Amino acid sequence: MKPYVVGIDIGGTNTQIGIVDSRGNVLARNAIKTGGHPEVTDFIDDLHAALMQTIEQNGMKGEIGGIGVGAPNANYFKGTIEQAANLPWKGVIPFAEMLRKKCGIPVAITNDANAAAIGEMTYGAARGVKDFIMITLGTGVGSGIVANGQLIYGSDGNAGELGHVTVRAQNGRLCGCGRAGCLEAYTSATGVARTAREFLELRNEDSLLRRIPVQDITSKDVFDSAMAGDKLALEIFDYTGKILGEAFANFVAFSSPRMIVLFGGLTKAGDLIMRPVKEAMEANLLPIFKGKVDIVFSQLKEADAAVLGASALGWETAKQNND
Amino acid sequence: MKPYVVGIDIGGTNTQIGIVDSRGNVLARNAIKTGGHPEVTDFIDDLHAALMQTIEQNGMKGEIGGIGVGAPNANYFKGTIEQAANLPWKGVIPFAEMLRKKCGIPVAITNDANAAAIGEMTYGAARGVKDFIMITLGTGVGSGIVANGQLIYGSDGNAGELGHVTVRAQNGRLCGCGRAGCLEAYTSATGVARTAREFLELRNEDSLLRRIPVQDITSKDVFDSAMAGDKLALEIFDYTGKILGEAFANFVAFSSPRMIVLFGGLTKAGDLIMRPVKEAMEANLLPIFKGKVDIVFSQLKEADAAVLGASALGWETAKQNND
Repeated sequence: MKPYVVGIDIGGTNTQIGIVDSRGNVLARNAIKTGGHPEVTDFIDDLHAALMQTIEQNGMKGEIGGIGVGAPNANYFKGTIEQAANLPWKGVIPFAEMLRKKCGIPVAITNDANAAAIGEMTYGAARGVKDFIMITLGTGVGSGIVANGQLIYGSDGNAGELGHVTVRAQNGRLCGCGRAGCLEAYTSATGVARTAREFLELRNEDSLLRRIPVQDITSKDVFDSAMAGDKLALEIFDYTGKILGEAFANFVAFSSPRMIVLFGGLTKAGDLIMRPVKEAMEANLLPIFKGKVDIVFSQLKEADAAVLGASALGWETAKQNND
Repeated sequence: MKPYVVGIDIGGTNTQIGIVDSRGNVLARNAIKTGGHPEVTDFIDDLHAALMQTIEQNGMKGEIGGIGVGAPNANYFKGTIEQAANLPWKGVIPFAEMLRKKCGIPVAITNDANAAAIGEMTYGAARGVKDFIMITLGTGVGSGIVANGQLIYGSDGNAGELGHVTVRAQNGRLCGCGRAGCLEAYTSATGVARTAREFLELRNEDSLLRRIPVQDITSKDVFDSAMAGDKLALEIFDYTGKILGEAFANFVAFSSPRMIVLFGGLTKAGDLIMRPVKEAMEANLLPIFKGKVDIVFSQLKEADAAVLGASALGWETAKQNND
């Protein structure tokens, strides 16, 4: 087996490239702009050039076993990126096949949350854990589910949309997906900001958050206020954590994971979010599951996490191709 | 590989035994009472005697590759029956190992809903389907989840408790599990009867159901009334199906199954339950899942289903033991 893999994280603005060894060390990095390539073929050309440059500069030619790509709306089974709202290319793009042809190296692709789950399983908190759920708490809420040591892709590659599980069946908040009451509408970074606006409107009590124009409040503001001891801000985290923990109790009833790993911007809130999540999950678990499920923060360094997650998929495709 | 397996279904009252071929034909049957055996060793002795008698009478000695057992509160990983409220034996019983020692044939055990899922995958509606969810709608609501062609047991063998997913986070009905708002409290046979009592109390309209003492109403009464065109009874099925379909939309977001298979007493209601379930699921699915998930009734003959499900597990353990 060749000693290195490549992880590529395609974001709306930048595309990060990393060459990674089997222990999860990022040995070399590069990046290109995602924008400025209205045609995906131009993007592939530039990505290939940047990748080859990095490989050659580091004397790793012929040493790369596989390339893993994490991208929004990527489908693992089909190797495609489909209708991604935040990327310049519309329609269904056979990305994995295009990049493989260009580089001559096996390529696999999946969405960001699945890549994060594989990364955590390969290098992070979930090493050796055969049953866990990765939850990403960012602008949205994403997830990757691992059972029997395998990522669950489902019949169409779209499994693990836990951000869009209904948590409020009645009078739920509208969600970006067009439905109402989704977990994401409450427990994403934007959900936290919505809760802040809701609480400020419904209540009269004083809060540091009242110093900020209400439409400008972000989850970061709520965090800063909570750290300063603001009671309303603390309550917002309790409310968020409670809904998340209740949802986790349902996820446990589904796949009985050993562990739930939290990742993404909102985890910076640390114990402000962890404590209410743990309390609400334990309080809502079926008796047979109580005390059995750990909730932990991701162990992947944030700056490297997306590239590491994608690179972990590179090992899988390398193995499948015996390379 | 030996040509037959044994399926054993341990119920609260009777224990059914069947010898099954690879196409799911039950070639021979026997049964013993589950009760009347305060000690599990006595039960195992009687079960062994009945099984051997059946095997010998049918000239199948040495032809049995494995024994699969379906039982309440059975744990596949540990081979145990644990704290089963409806069985005479308390504590943790190493049932698989006890039966294997007695019979000299490999034994595997799992709970009823998981056995039903394996049965459906082996002989029924889910043949060749790698991702599906089995939902049993009886006195309770059980489930077995198959992903990547494997049953999901989870970290402790207890995965698939979808009857206890919370569907009403606020003011939910109390459930037998001690929590509130569980799917089972609404969509089991007893849940349907509860809905009937609730509707009759809250409303004034006439209904055939008012002829029955309210505490005696069963889901069968609701079915009979609905078939007679009773408006309130029809509405009870709509209400039940709606909650079930909404829950299914969440299950789909989890594992993206190709198919959901319904099994158990409530499925006798046929289209009365199927129509509202399908409508509510489709209405609540994320756009990427719409039109992709079939909901079907089990194809296992009801009288044989439990034994067939258990026998399917017998093939698995036979394979694992190369027998």
